[in-house]
Amino acid sequence: MNSAAIVGIGATEFSKDSGRSELQLAAECSRSALADAGLSPSDVDGMVTFSMDASAEVAVARELGVPALSFFSRIPHGGGAACAVVQQAMLAVVTGMASVVLCYRAFNERSGSRFGRVQAAAAGSASSMGIDNSWHYPMGLGTPAAAVAMFARRYMHEFGATSADFGRVAVADRRAAASNPRAWFHGRPITLADHQASRWIAEPLRLLDCCQESDGGVALVVTTVDRARDLPVVPAVIAAAAQGSGPDQFSMNSYYRRSLVGLPEMGLVARQLWAQSGIGPADVSVAVLYDHFTPFVLVQLEELGFCPRGEARHFIADGALELDGRLPLNPHGGQLGEAYIHGMNGIAEGVRQVRGTAANQLPDVSHVLVTAGTGVPTSGLILTA
Amino acid sequence: MNSAAIVGIGATEFSKDSGRSELQLAAECSRSALADAGLSPSDVDGMVTFSMDASAEVAVARELGVPALSFFSRIPHGGGAACAVVQQAMLAVVTGMASVVLCYRAFNERSGSRFGRVQAAAAGSASSMGIDNSWHYPMGLGTPAAAVAMFARRYMHEFGATSADFGRVAVADRRAAASNPRAWFHGRPITLADHQASRWIAEPLRLLDCCQESDGGVALVVTTVDRARDLPVVPAVIAAAAQGSGPDQFSMNSYYRRSLVGLPEMGLVARQLWAQSGIGPADVSVAVLYDHFTPFVLVQLEELGFCPRGEARHFIADGALELDGRLPLNPHGGQLGEAYIHGMNGIAEGVRQVRGTAANQLPDVSHVLVTAGTGVPTSGLILTA
Repeated sequence: MNSAAIVGIGATEFSKDSGRSELQLAAECSRSALADAGLSPSDVDGMVTFSMDASAEVAVARELGVPALSFFSRIPHGGGAACAVVQQAMLAVVTGMASVVLCYRAFNERSGSRFGRVQAAAAGSASSMGIDNSWHYPMGLGTPAAAVAMFARRYMHEFGATSADFGRVAVADRRAAASNPRAWFHGRPITLADHQASRWIAEPLRLLDCCQESDGGVALVVTTVDRARDLPVVPAVIAAAAQGSGPDQFSMNSYYRRSLVGLPEMGLVARQLWAQSGIGPADVSVAVLYDHFTPFVLVQLEELGFCPRGEARHFIADGALELDGRLPLNPHGGQLGEAYIHGMNGIAEGVRQVRGTAANQLPDVSHVLVTAGTGVPTSGLILTA
Repeated sequence: MNSAAIVGIGATEFSKDSGRSELQLAAECSRSALADAGLSPSDVDGMVTFSMDASAEVAVARELGVPALSFFSRIPHGGGAACAVVQQAMLAVVTGMASVVLCYRAFNERSGSRFGRVQAAAAGSASSMGIDNSWHYPMGLGTPAAAVAMFARRYMHEFGATSADFGRVAVADRRAAASNPRAWFHGRPITLADHQASRWIAEPLRLLDCCQESDGGVALVVTTVDRARDLPVVPAVIAAAAQGSGPDQFSMNSYYRRSLVGLPEMGLVARQLWAQSGIGPADVSVAVLYDHFTPFVLVQLEELGFCPRGEARHFIADGALELDGRLPLNPHGGQLGEAYIHGMNGIAEGVRQVRGTAANQLPDVSHVLVTAGTGVPTSGLILTA
């Protein structure tokens, strides 16, 4: 079977008020990704996005001038989709269903509809999601932060983790963002004391445990490794791409499991990633872990096998996640530091690390691990040169 | 590369008022499809549905007792998704991303939210679809029938087709439905005179040109051909599976093309189906063509290569689409006769024809062609023994 690679990355600026439509953002980042790949809209014959994206592929195709599509799909569950859209593109090109697939995600998530605010309609829709949400929203669990706070509290209770342990993730992200010119928090690192002094959003989550709300768009172009050889870029080969949804899975509120301190859906992703790629946690050069809320970064480290369950707080002590630490985390600054583009900006960073063109480029990058949204059905990637 | 097959089909009854939730319908048809395949929910590790389906795969998985999922996706554009969900399942199993994938579609489309009624919200949503619809809804093009009427009128004008030509599709469907016990219109055939006497819905579409509105659910189970050998059913091998979206594509209102008498997205599907399967139109034993509105069946016959453009009315004269005609159409009765389950019931019929178990079983079935919704980005399948 052919292999696939990401050969183009593109983004708009990351802001709090883009001043233009989500469709325009989608078109802009898509054009940028195609230009980066040395391809044009007429080369595209597949498009994939999030089911939450407001811009249908037919609309983006019209804006770009893409003539026709032989592949198009959507992935559900918000940020959990990020790596899965790349998996979709990979499946399309390796089986010949399409030759060049554009993946995109663009929104005015700060100046438009803010995910961080209670969306009463989400508990009222005539759908299984509406029903699921209707059990929790009336209890005050109406925002992602509120939903995650429950898991974070239990994790602290069982393993003795503290708010400061969560804070170390934020400090690492923000220190990386500080030296990334495209990051919203460029030039603005924080200390652990800053984190500890920040206000509660949903206890035990502080302001600095929660990712940004951002406007912007990111697009990725996927083709076969064979085709990539003819393009003027270093391909980021997709060594593994996997999805996972666990037992008793809900979107953000899987409260009915026997244990609340794991993310079994990410464990399922991890097992597939290691099996597909033939590498293990020790072989990861850079980890781009989804960081909408810091506690789930600790849980991910455990599910991915970087440390035993409950021991992430020890693993990350003493700056282990900093750029010069034992597991460099989110060298773009993550969604806490760079921008919240539903995980797609993390995949773009993974591509840059493989290419050797990142703002905070790490040395000797062989394999980049990228994960997608947590607390929801999720996905992951391993990229390599 | 492995091949894939449909090894299980399941359905609820088809009604106008199911009396139960859409989630329950989804679970019922899914259990039925798994039982048909000789599999259990614990065998399932992939699920695919329509982006329009109200029941998320996580909810259906919980209802069924599916332990975990390593593959899940959604296909947009209503009935255009039908064959594409099977393509998704095929891609997952042939690449090893999942081993058994459940595809489902279930709704209370008659007793609940009726697609045949103007949905004002569809032109007001803050999305590209809302914008697209907002150009047409205020002009009275607020239902699928109204949208299709525009195309039908142009087709009549260019090629001299008449309402009676459209009626022949309805007569063929209803004659097949009359001898299919699971069809809503079992025992109720119509004549061309009945069709011509039926009232206008959106001129030139009469009541009997428009498919039913139905409550119900249909599920399909897909696995590899290798795995299928161990199951107690005749597998319906997927000889081809393709999607298509054409130039200047909209959902139901691609009015800005130079010509309105074609469905170029179905032409793109057709070319892929013939290329993948190695067969041509003359090799098709049975055609299960999406028939929400009769005029688009004529256009499909042309795009699929059964006759030159504009000549479908000649092709279908003299009962060609009847069960004993030159191209047996929709032996289950189609969506005009059996039920409107967004095309999924047509795929199930394709499987039965391959198995030799259909109510109106045709002799010597080698290849069944199935198409998905028209007027939207669409998809198609070729099934074989």
